[in-house]
Amino acid sequence: MHVAEMENKVFHIEALREFSTRIFLHFGVPPEDAAQAADVLASADLRGIDSHGVARLYSYFGMLSEGHINPKPRITTVRSTLSTATIDGDNGLGLVVGPQANRIAMDMADKAGSGWVSVCNTNHFGIAGYYVLQALERDLIGWAMTNSTSLVTPLWGMERMLGTNPIAIAFPGKEEPPIVIDMATCAAAFGKIEMARRKGQAIPSGWGIDSQGRATTNPDDTVNGGALLPLGSDRERGGHKGYALAVMVDVLSAVLSGANWGPFAPPFALRLKIPERSVGKGIGHFFGAMRIDGFMDPDSFKRQIDDYIRVFRATKPAPGTNGPLIPGDPEREAEKLRREKGVPLIMPIIEDLRDISRKTGIPFD
Amino acid sequence: MHVAEMENKVFHIEALREFSTRIFLHFGVPPEDAAQAADVLASADLRGIDSHGVARLYSYFGMLSEGHINPKPRITTVRSTLSTATIDGDNGLGLVVGPQANRIAMDMADKAGSGWVSVCNTNHFGIAGYYVLQALERDLIGWAMTNSTSLVTPLWGMERMLGTNPIAIAFPGKEEPPIVIDMATCAAAFGKIEMARRKGQAIPSGWGIDSQGRATTNPDDTVNGGALLPLGSDRERGGHKGYALAVMVDVLSAVLSGANWGPFAPPFALRLKIPERSVGKGIGHFFGAMRIDGFMDPDSFKRQIDDYIRVFRATKPAPGTNGPLIPGDPEREAEKLRREKGVPLIMPIIEDLRDISRKTGIPFD
Repeated sequence: MHVAEMENKVFHIEALREFSTRIFLHFGVPPEDAAQAADVLASADLRGIDSHGVARLYSYFGMLSEGHINPKPRITTVRSTLSTATIDGDNGLGLVVGPQANRIAMDMADKAGSGWVSVCNTNHFGIAGYYVLQALERDLIGWAMTNSTSLVTPLWGMERMLGTNPIAIAFPGKEEPPIVIDMATCAAAFGKIEMARRKGQAIPSGWGIDSQGRATTNPDDTVNGGALLPLGSDRERGGHKGYALAVMVDVLSAVLSGANWGPFAPPFALRLKIPERSVGKGIGHFFGAMRIDGFMDPDSFKRQIDDYIRVFRATKPAPGTNGPLIPGDPEREAEKLRREKGVPLIMPIIEDLRDISRKTGIPFD
Repeated sequence: MHVAEMENKVFHIEALREFSTRIFLHFGVPPEDAAQAADVLASADLRGIDSHGVARLYSYFGMLSEGHINPKPRITTVRSTLSTATIDGDNGLGLVVGPQANRIAMDMADKAGSGWVSVCNTNHFGIAGYYVLQALERDLIGWAMTNSTSLVTPLWGMERMLGTNPIAIAFPGKEEPPIVIDMATCAAAFGKIEMARRKGQAIPSGWGIDSQGRATTNPDDTVNGGALLPLGSDRERGGHKGYALAVMVDVLSAVLSGANWGPFAPPFALRLKIPERSVGKGIGHFFGAMRIDGFMDPDSFKRQIDDYIRVFRATKPAPGTNGPLIPGDPEREAEKLRREKGVPLIMPIIEDLRDISRKTGIPFD
């Protein structure tokens, strides 16, 4: 363990937001898009999803520097009906293409009751939760999914064939805060394994396999040629279900839009292995939006959600716990704290941001 | 272990279908509805989902006998937009209300590109997979979910608050058979725990808790006042994710339609405890249908699915396995075998059917 890696420093969210915005502007991203992209990253930093905030800026920076991402995409509609569409992101930032595609889904919902958009030719879109929070602001039930670089093995396989392929959906309450679901379809995030590795700690069984396809609790094994396991981990505990969910996300996001699916999803970083085949364009996302009043009176729905939340919070707690949380609780608490006290960043991330600062001349900290 | 329980006998699917149809007719279910209901049960028996086929007929029989289910529902549309609707099932058989609501979703998809239907005032609808297979026959991507009697605890809880709340979705191939996902959102089915109990075997850790909220491997503990665990089992392996998925299914199916959600979902059998509160009407389902050509050329999509299936089948197998399956493989193999060789039923189920036969005068076997 390197002690320096565990040190951290706290930054005001607006300082991080401004730095990200200026970096995107530096590469010719239009001002509105730069602000949009920075907003998605800031949302992750606020909500405590540290792996998806400014920690990713170094990858975006590298991809833009080397011309792997188009800073000024012309986003087009490939095909559409009253409630469905396929969008081509023109290899733009996922942080720009994603929000635009999500708006298209929401606009369709306003007119047709619901809107469903599959997106190809796009890149990493930040946290899936961002998109469903946007839908809440328009009083819609939002859905968001994306495929991503393969890290996860199908049950009974020993190769990285699927991304961590998240699913997000949110439901508004009236007096209570919303239920916000945002979950990867693998047992544990790759970031957690990397953290265990840095600390020299074992990982729980059920998280990953080694390069020979054997269950392992050594994080090095999983990082070095092994793979993550799907949610459910093994056959007995339902690993086939997590695998099926990852396939669902992959097909809706990438097959349905004409993007690269499964093991062919391109990596979101420089110097990572490029898949041997291309079966489409970029990676894929999938967004949905549904008008609540397309199903029931929105006020009644929100009152029921309030009741739902209160009933679930009152569940008798398992021994040694404070009882069930409502999906979205930890992120909301992180946001409250970080808005007040700032966003803590670990030294390796700060060093990355300083490196970007040196290379661009844009001041940081 | 009672040896008699492990004996079984094989029945032709058409014999089971005819018996089910006649039982439904006996209670005044209209002929078309009786055939529809029997078809859903037959689909489960063919696909090897033994718990959801004629094994359930005894519950349907009991509910109809005691007037708990309306044999001649007037199914109505409560609210709709171009692509969404809420349907009131008038307390009909879920095996009749479900297919009707699914048809409404598919009809909307034909016109508007997609259709999304939330259903209240309904009952147990059989296997979720049935509905997405129906969508495949109309060249649509179908979704199906339902809530059900509470058996599952939220992570960190020690009470039954959620049903096994399944999610189904299917994608057609061109030369390859379709990908058919149909999965409960808990770690293991209640039926598996009951089977272990009969055999006097321990259950794997991660399936259930006892009445004190403690992890257990004794199936008796889980059945007697304990609860099932969500997919992911515990916090380390992502139990919060399975819990979130169960909440998603519950809200879409029951809150959005005005049905009973969470612990208030009524049981689907006589002599089970009735929840202390009613927060809506019956249980709830949720159906979706999307036109493939609302996103891309259907022929191209199906060719990509063929490629997808072949790529995933070619995944290097984990040691001691034959490699990954494609979701839907086991059910398709069961169907092939059972169409040829018949459907095996265990003695307790046969006894139930004989009892129904005695009570109704409708011959069985």
